[in-house]
Amino acid sequence: MADSSTPTIIKGLEGVYFTETKICKVDGLKGRLWYRGYSIESLAKNSSFEEVSYLILYGRLPKKDELDGFKARLISSMALDNGIVELLKSLNGKMLPMDILRTAVSAMPAFSEKKVYQNDSEEHIAESIEIIGRIAGVVATIGAMMNNLGYSKPDSSRGIAYNILYMMTGKKPEEKAAKMLDVMMILHAEHSSNASTFSTIVAGSTMADLYSAITAGICALKGPLHGGADEKALDMMKDIGDPNNTEKYIEDALAGKKRIMGFGHRVYKTYDPRAKVIKAYLEDIQNGSTMEVQTLTAIALKAEKLMIDKLGESKGIWPNVDFFSGPVYTYIGIPKSLFTPLFAASRSPGWCAHMLEYWQDNRLIRPLDYYNGQLDIPYTPIDQRK
Amino acid sequence: MADSSTPTIIKGLEGVYFTETKICKVDGLKGRLWYRGYSIESLAKNSSFEEVSYLILYGRLPKKDELDGFKARLISSMALDNGIVELLKSLNGKMLPMDILRTAVSAMPAFSEKKVYQNDSEEHIAESIEIIGRIAGVVATIGAMMNNLGYSKPDSSRGIAYNILYMMTGKKPEEKAAKMLDVMMILHAEHSSNASTFSTIVAGSTMADLYSAITAGICALKGPLHGGADEKALDMMKDIGDPNNTEKYIEDALAGKKRIMGFGHRVYKTYDPRAKVIKAYLEDIQNGSTMEVQTLTAIALKAEKLMIDKLGESKGIWPNVDFFSGPVYTYIGIPKSLFTPLFAASRSPGWCAHMLEYWQDNRLIRPLDYYNGQLDIPYTPIDQRK
Repeated sequence: MADSSTPTIIKGLEGVYFTETKICKVDGLKGRLWYRGYSIESLAKNSSFEEVSYLILYGRLPKKDELDGFKARLISSMALDNGIVELLKSLNGKMLPMDILRTAVSAMPAFSEKKVYQNDSEEHIAESIEIIGRIAGVVATIGAMMNNLGYSKPDSSRGIAYNILYMMTGKKPEEKAAKMLDVMMILHAEHSSNASTFSTIVAGSTMADLYSAITAGICALKGPLHGGADEKALDMMKDIGDPNNTEKYIEDALAGKKRIMGFGHRVYKTYDPRAKVIKAYLEDIQNGSTMEVQTLTAIALKAEKLMIDKLGESKGIWPNVDFFSGPVYTYIGIPKSLFTPLFAASRSPGWCAHMLEYWQDNRLIRPLDYYNGQLDIPYTPIDQRK
Repeated sequence: MADSSTPTIIKGLEGVYFTETKICKVDGLKGRLWYRGYSIESLAKNSSFEEVSYLILYGRLPKKDELDGFKARLISSMALDNGIVELLKSLNGKMLPMDILRTAVSAMPAFSEKKVYQNDSEEHIAESIEIIGRIAGVVATIGAMMNNLGYSKPDSSRGIAYNILYMMTGKKPEEKAAKMLDVMMILHAEHSSNASTFSTIVAGSTMADLYSAITAGICALKGPLHGGADEKALDMMKDIGDPNNTEKYIEDALAGKKRIMGFGHRVYKTYDPRAKVIKAYLEDIQNGSTMEVQTLTAIALKAEKLMIDKLGESKGIWPNVDFFSGPVYTYIGIPKSLFTPLFAASRSPGWCAHMLEYWQDNRLIRPLDYYNGQLDIPYTPIDQRK
């Protein structure tokens, strides 16, 4: 039906700018990433997930007392209201962890203390802190229930990553694992207008509240083309099974034109800088851990090298952050079905910050679709239809 | 920070086409609307919400036996699983009906029978029918709980609109009220890529499942710039209070540049054809109903006339579907806080159809945001921050 009047249709809205931002810059050609002007490398090396969350939300690094106060509020929000714990119990085992997380976040307003704030901005920051802490608490508790454990309170003297592992297992985690999870959370905290952040902003642009907007972000994160990619990459590594099978598997996959998860990215046309940070950790754990982790790590590093040789320079298909995450999470002790919920816990500061920023100059997001069907079909009574 | 390299930024994505569709055409200049090629006037006059849902999902009008089977499946899905009823009970009164609906839809996969389907298409249609029926059942049950009533099963011999009123009140509704609700649901069943449908598609474009996508639609519908507009319009009519105050109120509002809800639309630059259909019903009920409805109706009709005189031809600001809905819903017996949940129940066929259509040629939706901040700020240790 398309004729000369068919407008330009931009599938996926690729290349379209819908807003300005001061939160995050991704340089896809040079493979660089900054949160609020700080390079991802400097943050991964020097900072903590709590400090990075503060930075993303407020636009600057906190002073000591500001960070202490912020952290205390985050960890206090990780302690879940009994109503949320009961909801998690009632859904445990009945649907995927991501579905449970989405439902719990949607239900959170029922369990929020009704406070009166001086202004919208103060309220939005308070809600953001509550959301970031609670998502972490919910993810940890879903993990605990998967381990047949009950809900544990967080340790108020420690950070979010430590507490996720602590609440999930009921045991004090190894410091190295907690530190590695903290770095993983820093690397996932923000990434400009990716699909889940965009979904958050679309929902919030109707002036729905922050909980509704963040729930929409979680709805989008669930998909295998977005948050689910690290699971799929790990599945592939498990499928390969033995480092010696890697070459044959990759070649078969490439010949069959199968998509290899964890490679290629809408924005990065070179090595994802986050993948580089993770790769350094992978090299660190490849010998001193369980057989499973050693095998996965060896496969990952081998597959990466092969893929870069075959597709990197020639086709611009490079490893992304999802590719190496699986072996690292396995080392930390995170089960596969918690990868995406953990991604949500990590990305929540980014979602909140983008929503708050967009609301400062809000405009309803409502693009057009182009109708290419018939018009004015006469309505036929039901007994005359063929 | 903007310089000559600043790209074009399209706020709200206004005027951007992101996909083609065969579901719905809105002609904003001529004030016309078609679902699958059938004019909204012919459907409002001749069809039922169930038939329109079939049309939107399948792309053609059903034959008698097809409609009977489809309707039976819809009404059977309105009968809620005990787990969903318990969830509604646990959230009742603790947050807004829209929040409860969003949470219930998010939780639905926990209470779905696990079936194996022949193919994705069959599964998606089955899930769509389940979702449309269940949302209607949940909205009715939230309404019942607001009336301090328990859950009632739907009457399998009747349609969705009748059963919403029946389940909400525990009593057989008046046929005229049920018929009017059926028409309201037809008018709200679909509207191209509005914010909630777009939110659905954004979330689903990650290949998340249908429940996640529809939940994202509900997240967006909540906002006062989208689903909440009819509530705000009714608030205004109640604020006016007496038909004789209408002129002064409107003049004051216009002088103060306040936005008058229910007027103006991103797409319609003339009279919204749905508002015309509703207006005819309004004229029908303005004498034969309660004092409250009579007053609201008189205010609505007077305000409409004033607004058109002052803003219609000159500024292209015309009544939209939200303007007249409040008095009609009040006549039917729907409380204000159920307007938007009911909108969700009505729009669910549109959301499902758009998602299913988009998946046939899916592309991840991921537009860009333009970074206008600093880069490479050196990381300062915490004790050196000022």
